[in-house]
Amino acid sequence: MSRRVFRELVSVEMARKLLGEHFSVGPVGAEDVPLERALGRVLASDLEAKIDVPPFDRASMDGYAVQAEDTFGAEEDRPVLLQVVGKVGAGDVPQVVVEKGETVEISTGAPMPKGANAVVMVEYTWHKVELRVFRAVVPGENVMAAGADIMAGELVLRTGEYLTPRETGVIAAIGIGLLKVYRKPRVAILSTGNEIVQPGEPLPYGRIYDINARTLFDSILENGGEPKFFGTVGDRRAEILARVEEALGWADIVLTSGGTSAGVGDLLYDVIDDLGPPGVLVHGIAVKPGKPAIIGIAHGKPIFGLPGYPSSALMIYNVFVRPVIRRMAGLNAEIQGKVVEASAAERIFSSGGRREYMPVNLVQTEAGSYSVYPVPGESGAITTLSEADGFIEILEGKVFLESGERVGVELFGSGIKPADLMVIGSNCVGIDVLLSLMRSRGALFKTKVVSTGSSGGLVAIRRGEADVAGTHLLDEESGVYNIPFLSRFVIAE
Amino acid sequence: MSRRVFRELVSVEMARKLLGEHFSVGPVGAEDVPLERALGRVLASDLEAKIDVPPFDRASMDGYAVQAEDTFGAEEDRPVLLQVVGKVGAGDVPQVVVEKGETVEISTGAPMPKGANAVVMVEYTWHKVELRVFRAVVPGENVMAAGADIMAGELVLRTGEYLTPRETGVIAAIGIGLLKVYRKPRVAILSTGNEIVQPGEPLPYGRIYDINARTLFDSILENGGEPKFFGTVGDRRAEILARVEEALGWADIVLTSGGTSAGVGDLLYDVIDDLGPPGVLVHGIAVKPGKPAIIGIAHGKPIFGLPGYPSSALMIYNVFVRPVIRRMAGLNAEIQGKVVEASAAERIFSSGGRREYMPVNLVQTEAGSYSVYPVPGESGAITTLSEADGFIEILEGKVFLESGERVGVELFGSGIKPADLMVIGSNCVGIDVLLSLMRSRGALFKTKVVSTGSSGGLVAIRRGEADVAGTHLLDEESGVYNIPFLSRFVIAE
Repeated sequence: MSRRVFRELVSVEMARKLLGEHFSVGPVGAEDVPLERALGRVLASDLEAKIDVPPFDRASMDGYAVQAEDTFGAEEDRPVLLQVVGKVGAGDVPQVVVEKGETVEISTGAPMPKGANAVVMVEYTWHKVELRVFRAVVPGENVMAAGADIMAGELVLRTGEYLTPRETGVIAAIGIGLLKVYRKPRVAILSTGNEIVQPGEPLPYGRIYDINARTLFDSILENGGEPKFFGTVGDRRAEILARVEEALGWADIVLTSGGTSAGVGDLLYDVIDDLGPPGVLVHGIAVKPGKPAIIGIAHGKPIFGLPGYPSSALMIYNVFVRPVIRRMAGLNAEIQGKVVEASAAERIFSSGGRREYMPVNLVQTEAGSYSVYPVPGESGAITTLSEADGFIEILEGKVFLESGERVGVELFGSGIKPADLMVIGSNCVGIDVLLSLMRSRGALFKTKVVSTGSSGGLVAIRRGEADVAGTHLLDEESGVYNIPFLSRFVIAE
Repeated sequence: MSRRVFRELVSVEMARKLLGEHFSVGPVGAEDVPLERALGRVLASDLEAKIDVPPFDRASMDGYAVQAEDTFGAEEDRPVLLQVVGKVGAGDVPQVVVEKGETVEISTGAPMPKGANAVVMVEYTWHKVELRVFRAVVPGENVMAAGADIMAGELVLRTGEYLTPRETGVIAAIGIGLLKVYRKPRVAILSTGNEIVQPGEPLPYGRIYDINARTLFDSILENGGEPKFFGTVGDRRAEILARVEEALGWADIVLTSGGTSAGVGDLLYDVIDDLGPPGVLVHGIAVKPGKPAIIGIAHGKPIFGLPGYPSSALMIYNVFVRPVIRRMAGLNAEIQGKVVEASAAERIFSSGGRREYMPVNLVQTEAGSYSVYPVPGESGAITTLSEADGFIEILEGKVFLESGERVGVELFGSGIKPADLMVIGSNCVGIDVLLSLMRSRGALFKTKVVSTGSSGGLVAIRRGEADVAGTHLLDEESGVYNIPFLSRFVIAE
């Protein structure tokens, strides 16, 4: 049996450097989109206001447009009398000029008629034949000057701005209906491996469902890319070559998952090398998890060969691929506000030798700071990542973090809040029942269950008794739920 | 001239209570979506695993499946000899049983053949006719047991879970291709006012572009709703009635903007009352900005009449409407992690009497904490909100915040990072030029310009000299940019 082993493992920095030497990471191009579809896009040009906002001096109150000087001295018991010579509503073009001693009825948002320089609020007037004004105004009072909000010529938004509803509102204000944004980088996803089945399909014995394609696809969507799934290929060279070439024809960047270890890995390696130059740049990174990752360039486009194990694939994606996609989309490489300062809740050992990206959970202490708990589990498990709040980076030389040591936690999600209740211990169906009950009875706090493996009596319950909830947990007579092994769970402080 | 004044102003709490008495806020229903379109949706039912993950005991390394007991005592210089009786690849169904003294070549991910209980890594073997094993393994070594990641029967995700790429990955792992999520609440948006023009259209004199429809639409998208714009109506009763009825026919909730103050406001008020009962519940809230807001119920659906001024409209939307949309979408009423603790940078005065929601900016101090600066500006301006990081709530009885007083700032955006450089002062085209130059030369820090109004020399520049940048700022000979009035700007510490 002949298997090629990894090339020399390279460091995280060297892997990035090699990629950078052969590929210039930056926006892939620009395109015009209508404002209605601009949310979440990134501006590819500066936006300058062509108009004043508001475009004209406008009344900011309902009332009467006046020459302010006419109202000087007006008081409750000594009103000034003015002659009403017209009316301007919002959207009207004033047809009348306000001369000395005159006034025009005006609505909020209406253009100020010529001659007038202030508005008296309707509350301070009484209109009967003539208008009685009971309060003086100063020039400019209750008037919003043309350009007071945004001036014509003003740079309103800059290249690289990410468009949230606030920015689209500002663009609407200056009337721009079509704008230049960065094109979304096209990211092809390809799953490799004879054992991979898509969710929703029947699962024959010996097969597993494809996790990575889904998570990668959705994360690419969230990070400004345009993902496309190119399906699953088995471990035949010709098939892999054809599909990677097809993907390169469409994509700006190609991701494969699975098939990076020895055996199948050789095929992918050879295919990328054949499609080069330069072909494979990196095969094997001194990192945990994700060591077997491949980085290459073919047809001038980056190809990332991610490991098949979900935690490995997603960690390599987070550390190497996501920043590249984001920069190609015109976004910052890193998502802002995603790093939380915390301290190790216990001594946390690194596996040593390789850079380690360790999934962790955060628990808020009474003082408001955060404690870090490592999430146990292997890189073959999806739950290792799905239960984690984020991950910490442990450098190569570091053997362990001391209890209490400060560490930055990069969060996985944007809106992730550390759990109010964290349950750490062996997996237990009873806990799920308990939490569901709490939820159905209106408990709104967020819970997190970290299973340290399905050991002991629990497996016996699962295997021996199908109807766990019905038979063992609920005592029908008393109505009391009996949670087995609860004593074995630790409620985080 | 007869104008109806506001009904009695009600407090924020009373407005919420009145709405709650007539409308039960909660998810609007459920629908099935394929997993490929589940990102960003909210689960409407608990998801239980129907299969074990992995579904079978599987090899977690490339190597040889053995009976662990056969390898006991194996060492570098004293290998154990085993007979290779077959081969299992990933995706294969093992056709062979491993008996005592036998082994089967196995790939990562392949199902363990019957009889075998451990895998010896290929690195510790030498295959030549027989297999030499140079290292002992214990039962279970390099094998991932069926269900070790997720057990059949386990509750994997709960009702109400918001689906990020991590959750869609977990759902993929258990093979579910179709899932029940909450239907997105349909939110109709209607702009009222004769003066409103849609962006991209020409702007006749006296008209302004519609800001609110765009910002509301995009924010509804971000908060789990399905927005639809029902266009602009003028201030004619029949027109407003027809369009609101049309919107009610489609929507779960209707938003209008503009036309809430006296005059046009009466029309909207009357229309909602006619469409009831109960019709209008609230007309006028003791809040700043946004006092003229209307809340009503017609055809069993909430109608929010938002003021026309952007800041007023968006503040009322943030405080009253967004939480309702989010709960109808099955989300938490409030976005998590959006409140930042900070302290007032200076004494901040409330306008008094009404609950105030004041737009503010955040500046990070050297110690890492945040200082709050109020964003000056009027509710008629879009820039008041677009330049702000978030807002603070000042209760009715409070006259001012003391300098240094602690206050919670609710952020407007999710990824908002306070600026590294904040410029506070009169509006100046030169600052824009300077910032653009800095950006074009690679400066990556985030800047924020807070204009306190276009006063003094600046207006003269804008009005008097069209080509400010060319004529006055850039000295062509020296290549030096001369920024006028820079001394009047304050660089925040």
